[in-house]
This record gives sequence, structure tokens and C-alpha cells, in this order.
Amino acid sequence: MSGVSGEFSLPVRVYIEDTDAGGIVYYVNYLKYFERARTEFMRARGYDKPAFLGPDSLFVVTQAAVQYRVPARLDEALQVTAGLASVGAATLTFVQRVYRGRDCLVDAEISIALVDAASGKPKRLPASLRRDLQGG
Amino acid sequence: MSGVSGEFSLPVRVYIEDTDAGGIVYYVNYLKYFERARTEFMRARGYDKPAFLGPDSLFVVTQAAVQYRVPARLDEALQVTAGLASVGAATLTFVQRVYRGRDCLVDAEISIALVDAASGKPKRLPASLRRDLQGG
Amino acid sequence: MSGVSGEFSLPVRVYIEDTDAGGIVYYVNYLKYFERARTEFMRARGYDKPAFLGPDSLFVVTQAAVQYRVPARLDEALQVTAGLASVGAATLTFVQRVYRGRDCLVDAEISIALVDAASGKPKRLPASLRRDLQGG
Amino acid sequence: MSGVSGEFSLPVRVYIEDTDAGGIVYYVNYLKYFERARTEFMRARGYDKPAFLGPDSLFVVTQAAVQYRVPARLDEALQVTAGLASVGAATLTFVQRVYRGRDCLVDAEISIALVDAASGKPKRLPASLRRDLQGG
Repeated sequence: MSGVSGEFSLPVRVYIEDTDAGGIVYYVNYLKYFERARTEFMRARGYDKPAFLGPDSLFVVTQAAVQYRVPARLDEALQVTAGLASVGAATLTFVQRVYRGRDCLVDAEISIALVDAASGKPKRLPASLRRDLQGG
Repeated sequence: MSGVSGEFSLPVRVYIEDTDAGGIVYYVNYLKYFERARTEFMRARGYDKPAFLGPDSLFVVTQAAVQYRVPARLDEALQVTAGLASVGAATLTFVQRVYRGRDCLVDAEISIALVDAASGKPKRLPASLRRDLQGG
Repeated sequence: MSGVSGEFSLPVRVYIEDTDAGGIVYYVNYLKYFERARTEFMRARGYDKPAFLGPDSLFVVTQAAVQYRVPARLDEALQVTAGLASVGAATLTFVQRVYRGRDCLVDAEISIALVDAASGKPKRLPASLRRDLQGG
Repeated sequence: MSGVSGEFSLPVRVYIEDTDAGGIVYYVNYLKYFERARTEFMRARGYDKPAFLGPDSLFVVTQAAVQYRVPARLDEALQVTAGLASVGAATLTFVQRVYRGRDCLVDAEISIALVDAASGKPKRLPASLRRDLQGG
């Protein structure tokens, strides 16, 4: 699979909880925005509990690479995107961006892996999930 | 049991993560400070996993009443206290304060109850816990 | 002014960022939900930057009293309300609740005061604001 | 300047606030730990207000690349390191790790840039700062 498929966009409003004493969005909090967008990306494909795949499997983030270009500020209305860049045996890699209007403020590549809840060991992604995501 | 017994004090440094665009500590975050102090209060009495009492019991907060007097700011060194005000059948009530030097910035009364992890129903506090806390 | 006027309701989805190791919404985070609802309550009345009233005035929380009845869980769709219970010289008091369907999970009374940004001293609420809110 | 110089290590305890419904530290929160360690790295070199260099200059994060290897859990005692990997005209790049005993759980490379508070434009790092950090 190549290219970014089925890009999803979630509107996010900046609240006080998101800001810091520099008067801008605390850089850590963009990762929360990205997770909200990935979650809704999955929900839009029929996964109602996107963090858990059955009682003994969960997704964990394994890599995150983030470029911060322009800071967002209190009360701004943002768009946060999630697109699937690649699907591996146990791993999904997303390309994600934060936009204010047409300006890209932050972009990121974030990988998540399916693991066994008890052992933490990677688990093969179910074929049905791969199908649901690639058809997105 | 009456009065506040065995008061515990935890030093807390204010980091960027704790602040908001008003240039002060985001008021919600004092509740995190209070929980850290309650946790260390319990740990000092021999409870290594203070949030869970065995695999099927956990503590949940049932009430919080907080007065905000003076805001704390970035990089300040604070003291956060936890004292036990009362012990009920299933509930512990703490009196907690945030100090900057001698100034009390925030004070609170916070109640936690022991509940069954699956059902959420209150559970009687073990006699050993009551003894450990009242002797503190 | 008496009774709760102009109640506002904001839909909130529970994300991973909101939960804790107990498998429920971390109790501190309901205060973030409450602030989002107060912010939108103000925005609906024409205040685009609800935390700041002009460059040298901001709202700070002075009191919060919260009762936690039933915990919310990951992926649930909640409604968070904000209603104005009283308007003082410098202070607004809100009654706020978190609902899951018809069940009230959390309720709170939260007071905010207008203060001078530099000195932190309370400031009289502008007559226009009082009018806008009471007509809500 | 090459290699990682003057590595700093900060003890961090995992509290409930840091965890999520997966029963592990929420991956976003390691970035808070990293910022605490960078802040103390600077404080140890005499910078009492490490986020701001004078009234009109602040540091912002421009890049973060994080590898998550093993999750940390509630109540664990961690060590979080900050070492300076390179010093540019306006940018400092840190190599940072989270350890539990000898196990490296998370590692990251994080760049921060000095910017003008009003315009957000990069500013040259003062020679005195460069000297203080490289001698660290």
C-alpha cells in the first residue's frame, strides 16, 4: 500500500486546557489532537472501540516524529487530519497534520502496533482490519 | 477520629505542562498535585500501590471542594500537603493545601472511596488499613 | 438573579487522553470538560475570547465543588452542561453536569471571577456582560 | 560540538495522572517527563526560568522524534535523562531517554529553538548561553 489513503479531518477547538504560559498550544497537546483524529478515523470505519481489538489486544504508539512549524493559540478553530500511510504485519503508520485554514501548523508521522495486553508482544493485524482500512 | 492527622508534605515544582495561557498554573492541575500528595501519604504508610487495594478494589474520588486563593506561576517551588480529616466505612476524607513559602494558595477537601473494580460498588475499608492510617 | 438560566449543553467524546489506569475517566479531567462547556456557553453569547475580557482582564476559577456519582468510560458520548446560577459583582457561578444519556455522572458548582491580569485583584463585571448573560 | 554532553538525570514517579485505560503510561506524557528533565538540565546550569530568556524571548519545541520500546506502569520509579546533542545558531537538540533500572523504555531526540515572543521568529542564541551549555 502506498500513498496516504482515506484522509480523515476532525475539527478541534483550542481550549485553555491546551495552552501554556507561552500563550500558545502546549506542544505536547497536539499529540492528543492527533490521537483524537486517529480514533475517529477508525470509528468512521466501524471500529467503535478503536483502542482495543477484543479484550486482550490493544494498540500502542511505537514511533512519533513531529515537526512544529507555527503555534496555534487559544480559541482558534483547527482541523486535524489522519491518513493511513502504510500497513505492516502488526503496525499502522499514519501521516497527520494540524491546519488553521490553509496553513499547516504541525505535521507528524505516527506508528501504532497491535500488542497483546498482558505480554505487550506484537500481534498480527487481523485480515478483516487490513481490509476495512485499505478499502477506506 | 477528629482533626487532621499525620499531615504529609510533598515538594512540587511548577513546569510548563502545568501552566496555561493566563501565565498561571491551570486550576485543574492542582488536583493532580493533590493526588500526588495523597499517593505519597499512603506510600509513606507502606502502601506501594496506593490506588489499588488488591486486584479487584480501587479508590475513586467521590467529592472535591477546592478554594483557589492565589495563583502559582511557572518555575515556582511549592509544598503540597495531605492530611487525613476523617475515616468512614468506605471513605477517606483528606484536607489538602498548596503552599508557596508561608502563603496558602489553594485549599481543598477531597473524599475518596474504596470500590469494587468491576461493579463500582463501595467496599468496606479493611481494618488493617484503618489501623495503619490512624496510627500515621 | 435566581435559578439556573440559559443552560448550555456540549457533546463530549471520551478519548484515551481522558482515561486512567482504573479504566475510567480520570476525575480531574471532568473539570476540563466543564471548562469547555463554560467557554462555549460564553461563545454562544457572542464572547469570542471567553477567558479574557480585554487585554488586561482574565477570568480565574475561585471555587469548585464537584460530586462524582458514576464514572464515564473510554469511547462514551457524554453531554456536559453549563448553566449560570448567580451573577455577583465580580463573580459568575455556574452549575454544571456531565450526563450519559439520562444518567447524571458528575455535578459541580464552579465560580469564576474577573481579575486584573497584572495584579490578580478582582474587577467589577462590565454592565454589558451582565446584561448579555442574564438575557441568555 | 559532537556527542552528548553533560547528561542530566531526573527521577520521576508515575502517578495516576500519567496513565491511561490501557494500564500503562499514556504515551503523550513521556514528553512532559522529557520537558521536566530539560528544564532541570537548564536550571542546573544557572537558568532559573529556563523557558524564557528575558521578557521577549522564549524557547519552543520545533521537532520531536520518539521511539517507544517498553511501557512504564503506575507507581514505577523512572529516571529521565537530558543530554545536549548539538547547538545551532538558534536551536538546541537534546537526546533524551526514560529508564526503569537499566532498561531503556523510551528514547527521543527533541529540538528547541529560541524565538521572539511576539513575532515567533527565531533568534540567535546568546553567546553566554552557548558557553554555559557547552561547558556543562
